[in-house]
Amino acid sequence: MRNVYVVGVGITSFSRLEFPISEIAAYPAMMALQDAGNPKIDHLYVSNMGGGRVNGQTALASAVVDTLSLTPIGAETIENGPASGSSAIKTGFMAVASGLCDTVMVAGAERMREVNNLEATDFVATLTHPLAEYIYGVTLPSLAGMFTRLYMEKYGVTSRHLAMVAVKNHANAMLNPFAHLHQPITIEGILDSPEALTNNPIVADPLRFFDMCPVSDGGACVILACEEVARKVKRPLVRLAGVGQATDTHCVHERENPTDLLAVRGAAAQAMKMAGIKPSDVSVAELHDAFTILEIAESEEVGFFKKGEGHLALERGETALGGKIPINPSGGLKGKGHPVGATGIGQAHEIVTQLRGEAKKRQVKNAKIGLTTNFGGFGNNVVSLVFKRED
Amino acid sequence: MRNVYVVGVGITSFSRLEFPISEIAAYPAMMALQDAGNPKIDHLYVSNMGGGRVNGQTALASAVVDTLSLTPIGAETIENGPASGSSAIKTGFMAVASGLCDTVMVAGAERMREVNNLEATDFVATLTHPLAEYIYGVTLPSLAGMFTRLYMEKYGVTSRHLAMVAVKNHANAMLNPFAHLHQPITIEGILDSPEALTNNPIVADPLRFFDMCPVSDGGACVILACEEVARKVKRPLVRLAGVGQATDTHCVHERENPTDLLAVRGAAAQAMKMAGIKPSDVSVAELHDAFTILEIAESEEVGFFKKGEGHLALERGETALGGKIPINPSGGLKGKGHPVGATGIGQAHEIVTQLRGEAKKRQVKNAKIGLTTNFGGFGNNVVSLVFKRED
Repeated sequence: MRNVYVVGVGITSFSRLEFPISEIAAYPAMMALQDAGNPKIDHLYVSNMGGGRVNGQTALASAVVDTLSLTPIGAETIENGPASGSSAIKTGFMAVASGLCDTVMVAGAERMREVNNLEATDFVATLTHPLAEYIYGVTLPSLAGMFTRLYMEKYGVTSRHLAMVAVKNHANAMLNPFAHLHQPITIEGILDSPEALTNNPIVADPLRFFDMCPVSDGGACVILACEEVARKVKRPLVRLAGVGQATDTHCVHERENPTDLLAVRGAAAQAMKMAGIKPSDVSVAELHDAFTILEIAESEEVGFFKKGEGHLALERGETALGGKIPINPSGGLKGKGHPVGATGIGQAHEIVTQLRGEAKKRQVKNAKIGLTTNFGGFGNNVVSLVFKRED
Repeated sequence: MRNVYVVGVGITSFSRLEFPISEIAAYPAMMALQDAGNPKIDHLYVSNMGGGRVNGQTALASAVVDTLSLTPIGAETIENGPASGSSAIKTGFMAVASGLCDTVMVAGAERMREVNNLEATDFVATLTHPLAEYIYGVTLPSLAGMFTRLYMEKYGVTSRHLAMVAVKNHANAMLNPFAHLHQPITIEGILDSPEALTNNPIVADPLRFFDMCPVSDGGACVILACEEVARKVKRPLVRLAGVGQATDTHCVHERENPTDLLAVRGAAAQAMKMAGIKPSDVSVAELHDAFTILEIAESEEVGFFKKGEGHLALERGETALGGKIPINPSGGLKGKGHPVGATGIGQAHEIVTQLRGEAKKRQVKNAKIGLTTNFGGFGNNVVSLVFKRED
């Protein structure tokens, strides 16, 4: 297998966008082309979850390849629920590693503004089991609520810990011009004040409004290339050093221990093994905090902290900017936003920006190795990526 | 790059199926596992176009991997409109060729029975340009109708030639137990008799009812493996020797010459170049005859006949079973059916069955090399595969 490098990145603001979905994918692709010095692209992968359902557009890759005037190169859409973005990066990795392509573009996009909040929950629930989960009323927020309650009982996590994740990630998002939520929040405002129940109502007990990521539109892109191409690009050399993926039971209720996220554990272990690193080597991580509890649980499953102790490390400030292992300096899904099909590519965008030393006010010092986890379903299909600064 | 072999195949009947879509994918996967002697699978690719829109199920790969008890291996859905199946095979090829996986399962499924005929047209039209085509009433049948009219004027193709494709492919489908349409038809019945206009009404002039493929449910699966695994499987050795893909303008009206299918030409040329063959080396082909005209046009674009002369070769019987280059011995999309996301894998199933010499009454004699074209959009994203018998 050949080594694979990230030679260009681009991103839209994660927010509410007016453009058609093909253009939401194309815009960051143009940024990434410019970033990489406009290399010849051999193949396009598009990541998207809801184009067919929400936007009435299937075969999105064929639209994007033409929008970018990249015809006649081949193009496909890769879908893996909320982990579509990282799955597409993994697929692009194979295309270059195999020698079939030298340079591959991976562009993700989601446009969810067509749906209102109720419909968004309905749309996202299409990734649960249609016969065993959703028809009984189970949605992603309700699964997350039950997961959180178990986690609280077992490990002593409290609502205050959850709020600390939200406050940290909103603060990080303030430093990220591409973030959806530019809204600083405090524990006082969302938990302790008399207005907290109004400001931050319960959605899926014990989870409240500010424990949930926003519903975002957005796009992001990375360009992957072999070493020969990467060395010609006058940008810091960042290698996609590890790709890992694991699945778990489709339904959460079938898991022996529902508080274990075995797919996160498996995917991260694979990616780190391929990259030849251990958790303590990681300088910066983007974890899939669609719900605040997930950042805590994933920080344990990837091996940064012992199982059940992630909230204690959070309390000690170890996951904040300037801490031992900053998590979600971009703001994470919580603050930066969650345009489903683009989310994993947005994570990669942040890690590459950090490893290049170009993250400005949110820069993690001496960032050399970055890790992402992108969480499909309720943890039933997880992709983890490891990036290394190499020059 | 490592060589890649097909070690197992499976297929459902293409028809109207009662099962959930995850089971439509899983059933042929079980057949393929049995066919291959139950090898250890390293990764699953699922091909599907309409799960999110038609069946309310996204993240289908996560459902199928669990249905098959293949967790914790990774799984993704690959979508490229009606060419999703071949795109997924091409992706599986890369996974094995790169060395990332030794054995990969590629399972496709579509369940269209939820939609009636009008909705089916609406669903399929989601792959056209949403701002420049569909809102003006352009659907796939209407594009095919206009394409056919141009082809008739330019090359002398007649309604009789179109009917000959339908008659041939319905006859082939009679020999295929998995085919959707087991209905022999004659030129007399669909064109010449007084009842022809009733039996075979005009749908998109000059195309009639029997120029269109049926709307099918169905699934198909191939298992791909490296040489070491393939040599252990006690089945005839069939190599996936060439993969090609090309895109064209998203909209048909932007093409310099709308009767040229440049993406078919490009994809087939690439696949044959990789396989080291020329068109005259091909023993058997499965071409994407969603409309009868497409079989004629594609038979020219892949290089079997000169441009504008495919209908003459058809007249001479060269594309029939027993002819110089039998096309669509399975019955093609026209007779066998077109469960969109599974169609390309169904084509591969037929070619592998032919190269193994196991096609029984529809067996092409001495079949050593087979080619497929899988046509996305209206020819805007085409994948072509070449298979070789190697023992």
